Amino acid sequence: MTRSARADRLLAECRLIAEMSEEVERTTRRFLTPPVAAVHEHLRHRMKALGMAVTVDAVGNLRGIWQPEYAGSPRFVLGSHIDTVPNAGAFDGVLGVVMALELVASAQAAALPLALEVIAFSEEEGVRFGVPFLGSRAVAGRFDPQLLALRDLEGVPVETAIRDFGLDPAQIDQASVAHDAVGYLEIHIEQGPVLEAEGLQLGVVTGIVGQTRCELTFSGHANHAGTTPMHLRSDAMTAAAEWILAVENLALESDGAFIATVGKALAKPNASNVIAGSVCLSLDLRSERDDLRDQAVFELLERASAIARRRGLICVGKIQMQQPAVSMDEQMTAYLAESVEASGFPVRRLPSGAGHDAMVMATRLPTAMLFLRSPGGISHHPDESVVAEDLDAALLVAELFLSRIARIQDNKPL
Amino acid sequence: MTRSARADRLLAECRLIAEMSEEVERTTRRFLTPPVAAVHEHLRHRMKALGMAVTVDAVGNLRGIWQPEYAGSPRFVLGSHIDTVPNAGAFDGVLGVVMALELVASAQAAALPLALEVIAFSEEEGVRFGVPFLGSRAVAGRFDPQLLALRDLEGVPVETAIRDFGLDPAQIDQASVAHDAVGYLEIHIEQGPVLEAEGLQLGVVTGIVGQTRCELTFSGHANHAGTTPMHLRSDAMTAAAEWILAVENLALESDGAFIATVGKALAKPNASNVIAGSVCLSLDLRSERDDLRDQAVFELLERASAIARRRGLICVGKIQMQQPAVSMDEQMTAYLAESVEASGFPVRRLPSGAGHDAMVMATRLPTAMLFLRSPGGISHHPDESVVAEDLDAALLVAELFLSRIARIQDNKPL
Repeated sequence: MTRSARADRLLAECRLIAEMSEEVERTTRRFLTPPVAAVHEHLRHRMKALGMAVTVDAVGNLRGIWQPEYAGSPRFVLGSHIDTVPNAGAFDGVLGVVMALELVASAQAAALPLALEVIAFSEEEGVRFGVPFLGSRAVAGRFDPQLLALRDLEGVPVETAIRDFGLDPAQIDQASVAHDAVGYLEIHIEQGPVLEAEGLQLGVVTGIVGQTRCELTFSGHANHAGTTPMHLRSDAMTAAAEWILAVENLALESDGAFIATVGKALAKPNASNVIAGSVCLSLDLRSERDDLRDQAVFELLERASAIARRRGLICVGKIQMQQPAVSMDEQMTAYLAESVEASGFPVRRLPSGAGHDAMVMATRLPTAMLFLRSPGGISHHPDESVVAEDLDAALLVAELFLSRIARIQDNKPL
Repeated sequence: MTRSARADRLLAECRLIAEMSEEVERTTRRFLTPPVAAVHEHLRHRMKALGMAVTVDAVGNLRGIWQPEYAGSPRFVLGSHIDTVPNAGAFDGVLGVVMALELVASAQAAALPLALEVIAFSEEEGVRFGVPFLGSRAVAGRFDPQLLALRDLEGVPVETAIRDFGLDPAQIDQASVAHDAVGYLEIHIEQGPVLEAEGLQLGVVTGIVGQTRCELTFSGHANHAGTTPMHLRSDAMTAAAEWILAVENLALESDGAFIATVGKALAKPNASNVIAGSVCLSLDLRSERDDLRDQAVFELLERASAIARRRGLICVGKIQMQQPAVSMDEQMTAYLAESVEASGFPVRRLPSGAGHDAMVMATRLPTAMLFLRSPGGISHHPDESVVAEDLDAALLVAELFLSRIARIQDNKPL
C-alpha cells in the first residue's frame, strides 16, 4: 500500500474543518449554523485557488465549477455534505468534499476534457430540522416548499434559517443541477464494519437499502412479581423477549438479504417487583429489495401476533415509516467497478445501510458511490477515522473513473 | 355459600376507613400521617365498645386487649396493618384488623376463656420510609434504633414522625409483645390469583417466600442499525432477550418451586436506529426454599455469562438483596388447617409471595396466617375487592381456630 503526502494533507484538512463547530472541543455543525459560514470561507478559497467559479445556492450548498476551455459544456458532479451530527467525527461527509477538490486538481493536471462541479451539500444528517437531505433535494429539483416551514428546537423555521444566512428561499428552484450534468459520484466513509472485517479498503455501493420502521406494543397484566405463579401470568417482558429473538432469527436466516434491529424497548411499569404490563419495541428493518423487506415485516408482525395470542396478551403494531430502496446507476457503477479493478483492488459490491446524498441525487442523475473502509465501523463519533492508504486508493480509483467518463464524454453523451 | 349481615357490615367498615386518606378520592395512608389518627379514633371507639383496654405504643401501633375475668393472663394476638400504598384498595391490611375485632365479639359471645390482643400495625408497606414492618418490628422486639434516622421524601426522620404524632420514641422497647402471649394469627387478602384460579375461598399460608433481587447488565457495542450486518453485531438487546426467556424457562421447569421475574429493562442508547450497546435487567426470584433459590440464582447468572460469552458481550451481575424464607409455625398452622377442614372447606396450603407482618411476628410468636381469595388477583389498586361469602368463611374458620386455642390454653400451655 502507498501512502502519499496528499492523503495526509487531505486528512489534516478534514481535521481543520472539524474545528469549525457550534461547540467547543466537539464537532457539531448543523444546517446553516455560524460555523457553516467558516467552512464555506475555507472551501471558497480552495475552489478559487483551483480557478473554479464559486456560488452558494439558496439552500446553502457551496458549489464550485471548473470549466476547462477545451471541454464542452456537459459537466460531471462530485460532492458530499458538510453538516454533521452532534459530537461528530471529522470525516463523515467532509472527506468526500475535500477529495472532490483534489480530483479537480488531478483533472487539471491531467488536462482532462471534462467540466466538473463540486457541491458541498449544506444538509444531509437531518439533525437541525428532523428531515435529512435539504441540500441534495434542492439540487435534484425535489425540494418541497413545505419543508421551509419546518422548525428547529428553538422554533426557527427553515425559511428563516436560510434568510439569516443571507440567502433567498425564493431562489431554491434555481438550485437544481444544470441540465447538461451527466452524472454524480460521491465518495464517503462506509460507516459500518463490513470492509474492515473482510480486509478491504474500498467498496462499490450498489444502492441504498430501503427501510421500514415499526413500533410494536405487547400488553399483558402488570401483576405482583411475588404472588403471581408463572402459569397465571400475562408477562409483556417475556413476550417481547420471544419476539426480539424471532426478529434476530429471521434476519440471520435471510443470510444478508435484510437486517433487522430492535434498538428500543420501553417496559411499564418497569419495576423490579412488578410483572411488566406492557413493553413497547421498535423494529428497524432494511433491505436492498423492497419485496423482501415488505415480506419480512409482514412475517414478523404475524409472529408477534402469534406470540401474543399464545401467551394471552394483546399485540398492536404500527408501521411508522417505509422508504423504498434506491439503486445506484448500473452503467455508472460498472464504470466505477472497472476503475477499482483497473487500479488493482478487489471489487466488493455492497449496499449502503445508511442514507446519503447519492440516494437523492440518483433520482436526478446517473449516480455512483465509492466507500472507504471505516476503522472499527465507527462513525458519528469523535473516534471516527480514515486510513491514509485507503484515501490514496480511493483517489486513484476516482481519477481513473473520471478519465474514463471524460473519454466517453468526448465521444458521445452518456 | 352463606352471606351474613356481619360480612356486609365489615366490608362497609373497610370502605369507611378507606376514606381516611392523605388524598382526596384516593386511599393513601402512610405511616403516622394525619389520617392514621382518624383511623385510631375510629378503632378506639370500636375497641372500647367491646370493653377492651386501648393503648397506642411508641411506634404508633393501636393495641386493644380483651381480658375476660374467667381467663388466665396468657393471651393470643390478632392483627394486621392500617397503613396503605398510594392509591390503595380498601382491604389490604385493614380487613384483618376489623375481622380481628369481630373475632373478639365472637369470643365474648361464646364466652371463650381466652385473652385477646388486637394490634392495628402502624406500618407494613414501607412506602414512607422505604423500609417495611416498622410496626411489627417493635412488637416482635426487633426494632433497630437506627431505623429512627430514616427520612421520608420531605426529609422528616422516623423519630420526628413519631414525636409529631404525640408519641415518645424512647419507649419503643416497651412495645414488645407481652411475654405471656402464646401465638399470632393474621387474616389477609391473598394479593394474588392462585385461590381464585382454583375456585377456592381460603388458603392456609405455609410461609413467606425468600427473595433475591439482582441487577444484570449486558454490554455490547452500540452500532448503526443500518450499516452493521447481523454477523458483526454485539447486540445487548438480543442477549437480554435470550436471558429473559432463560429465566422464564427455568422458573417454569421448577414447577412452582420458585418464581422469577424480569420486570425492569433499560436499554442504551434506546434508539430505534441504533443497536443496543447495553441493556440492564432486574431479576426478582422467590422461593419457599432458600437452597433452591440460591441454586436458581446461581444457575441464571451462569446462563447470563454463557449467553454473553457466546455473543461476544460482557455481562455483569450484582445481587442487591437476599431475604431468607420465613416459615409459619407448624403446630399453629396445623390447628388452622384443621379449622378450615372442620368448617367444611378444602385445605389449600400455599406460600405467600409478598411480605406480611406475620413474617416478623413469626420471629417472636408461633404464627399462622389465613388468606382470603383476591378477585382478579388485584391488590394495591382501587379495584381491590373481597367476596362477602369468603369473609364469612374466614370468620367461621377463625372462630373455630380460636376456640381450639382456648381449649388447649385452658388445659396446658402451647
